Amino acid sequence: MIKANNPNRKSWLSVPADSDFPIQNIPFGVFKTPEGVVTCGSRIGDTAIDLAALQQLGYFASIDLPDGVFLANDLNDFISLSKDLQRAVRDAIAEVFDDNTATLQNNKAHQSAVLHDVHAVEMLLPVTVGDYTDFYSSIEHATNVGKMFRDPENALLPNWKHIPVGYHGRASSIIVSGEPVYRPMGQTLPPNANAPVFGPSKRLDFELEMAFITRNGKPLGERISTTEAEDYIFGMVIFNDWSARDIQKWEYVPLGPFLAKNFASTISPWIVTLDALEPFRVASPEQNPEVLPYLKARKDGNFDIQLSVSITPEKQTEESIVCQSNFKFMYWSMAQQLAHHTVGGCNIKAGDLLASGTISGKTPDSFGSMLELSWSGKNPLSLKTGETRTFIEDGDTVTMRAFCQKNDLRIGFGMAQSQLLPALPME
Amino acid sequence: MIKANNPNRKSWLSVPADSDFPIQNIPFGVFKTPEGVVTCGSRIGDTAIDLAALQQLGYFASIDLPDGVFLANDLNDFISLSKDLQRAVRDAIAEVFDDNTATLQNNKAHQSAVLHDVHAVEMLLPVTVGDYTDFYSSIEHATNVGKMFRDPENALLPNWKHIPVGYHGRASSIIVSGEPVYRPMGQTLPPNANAPVFGPSKRLDFELEMAFITRNGKPLGERISTTEAEDYIFGMVIFNDWSARDIQKWEYVPLGPFLAKNFASTISPWIVTLDALEPFRVASPEQNPEVLPYLKARKDGNFDIQLSVSITPEKQTEESIVCQSNFKFMYWSMAQQLAHHTVGGCNIKAGDLLASGTISGKTPDSFGSMLELSWSGKNPLSLKTGETRTFIEDGDTVTMRAFCQKNDLRIGFGMAQSQLLPALPME
Repeated sequence: MIKANNPNRKSWLSVPADSDFPIQNIPFGVFKTPEGVVTCGSRIGDTAIDLAALQQLGYFASIDLPDGVFLANDLNDFISLSKDLQRAVRDAIAEVFDDNTATLQNNKAHQSAVLHDVHAVEMLLPVTVGDYTDFYSSIEHATNVGKMFRDPENALLPNWKHIPVGYHGRASSIIVSGEPVYRPMGQTLPPNANAPVFGPSKRLDFELEMAFITRNGKPLGERISTTEAEDYIFGMVIFNDWSARDIQKWEYVPLGPFLAKNFASTISPWIVTLDALEPFRVASPEQNPEVLPYLKARKDGNFDIQLSVSITPEKQTEESIVCQSNFKFMYWSMAQQLAHHTVGGCNIKAGDLLASGTISGKTPDSFGSMLELSWSGKNPLSLKTGETRTFIEDGDTVTMRAFCQKNDLRIGFGMAQSQLLPALPME
Repeated sequence: MIKANNPNRKSWLSVPADSDFPIQNIPFGVFKTPEGVVTCGSRIGDTAIDLAALQQLGYFASIDLPDGVFLANDLNDFISLSKDLQRAVRDAIAEVFDDNTATLQNNKAHQSAVLHDVHAVEMLLPVTVGDYTDFYSSIEHATNVGKMFRDPENALLPNWKHIPVGYHGRASSIIVSGEPVYRPMGQTLPPNANAPVFGPSKRLDFELEMAFITRNGKPLGERISTTEAEDYIFGMVIFNDWSARDIQKWEYVPLGPFLAKNFASTISPWIVTLDALEPFRVASPEQNPEVLPYLKARKDGNFDIQLSVSITPEKQTEESIVCQSNFKFMYWSMAQQLAHHTVGGCNIKAGDLLASGTISGKTPDSFGSMLELSWSGKNPLSLKTGETRTFIEDGDTVTMRAFCQKNDLRIGFGMAQSQLLPALPME
């Protein structure tokens, strides 16, 4: 039992009903306080907790933490510490905010240094992402894409059930929830044309994904086994892998997606630890054919995380949910993805981000992209506002949410939300 | 005229005949001194110059440099400065080491703090690479690969002459010359098999490339035009993009190379500035069909850089040159690559690395990979030692060299050299 996960613990901080952030969550993020200080933090209910202040005031005195490890622009130094230290910090936060603990609860001066209304702080990117990898691990998504673009009878490529297929993405353009995205300009090949044209993408899409953030790995040349893999995972975020389908179609053969994906990806600001997700562990889908020995992994390597995507047109307030999916549909587990990624000797570092690929379920309302939801633009979706959508339009806000629920315990991620703005004009 | 490029200048430091590093070069790198200090440096002849010491002793007093900018593990902070400041530093170094300048020349105490035999220092990775992109910009290479793996009659894909095709690579596994590479294990599909097997790659290859290092770009969503592009390039290195052809063949459809490339790439330690390469500017190959307006660029956007690759089998000393090529063969220029990379709004940062893709010429002895040189293993190459090679064998050392030569002026890169070691055993 992970101490901080104790389901009976209550906090002296108020936690709204249906909050993603009860005292059993204790995620990690980075924010700027109203006074302009950038600090690593955590969150309970709607209260942002300044961990640098908490450390400075001695609340982590029993833990052998480097001085000022939280007074940083990112969590990378904290993520570089041992998992034992990270657990000790999460346990200590749970203890400080337990309603049976008097110290901070009775010290108003300390509280004013440590606590902020979460709506008054500016959430920043939680990690400096060194390398970002995107997998393609939902069998329903890969099948849907294969049906649309290749052969409906042989939708899955021959390697798909043997390899957690993945590719390298762009780390520099990963942004935090709340930042806008500009529609990309690019080359596309119009139907029946034999030369490309240049202009704003006309098929701008989201991709509903989750991503995990790694701890430091092993030296170059060594491998991380499936058994070891979860020890190298710090936590997870929601990931919107914005995609320009028309640019992708023209550019991606033979070396994969490039400008179709590298203009932006939006992540949620709070990293939920793998420890906090432990109560929601579930079995992965059965893998047939059998995978190669280096990919064999524990059966319950998946997590039951409920996912949704909504669209809010510009100047509207009403969100329309267009997709409800679940992380547990993933064919390949995170442990398998990480073992595969490193089996050739590739090294990982603290703060690397590995995304799942679009997470689609079996039913049409669980497809994780507009490409699939509108079946390549053929079936427009109706929004609550009366408008329809085949792809994302300028001014639309796309909001992804993710949470786990079991009995009374809800552990969530908050959201990854970005508004799509028109392409900036050429100069 | 760039001051530091003055071809008539001579240094009071000795420069061996045929050195890549005359006083007109003044590259930038990072090294560890025999005393264990890590510092940014430059090089003239066989002398490594400690730039942190030079700054501390006041030799850059007339330049508005941040204190201790060279006392760093990488050049990223220096590369983040303005190009004017970077030019001022290069000019100042040229001035200090000009044989008409007495200051350091007459100060033995200062010299002992600043100068090291280049063979006595340990060269480190010159930059922390944030993102690494690999292009595919040699028409001869793309044609050769297309002939072997796709259709000999239609070797170039339809997008190739319209797009500087590129993809994202792995930054964490970029290593500096001198570090070894481990043969990767991975999945491959044997001929006529219908299920993959796992084991060490049997078709381990080099790829002869050059790469450029960027300065800080524009905010996400904005573009860098071909006219602006060279201002955002700091300098160049040699780049060996190690590749496992059998792993690549099985994994790369549809999302591109992944484990086939991410186990290691070797770069040369000294970044040669674009300024130093200015005398070697040449015209690019003619582009037909005409490119889209955003890709139109100055005609002389290429550089005449002579390239070679040699193989030295284990326990041998004699190198066999297996390839002689030239950077000027590139169909797409660096300015076009960078303009394309950012046209959708993707941002770049100081220290990003953009590689050319394999640089092959028209003649078989100029092909930049064993895949092409041995024509997919059909034509073994003979080495001077009497051995033959189709691909790289365990224990082989691969050495890439690059230099420019015009009349008496030679500006070079030194080398990118790694030995291939056997795969580490599975545990």
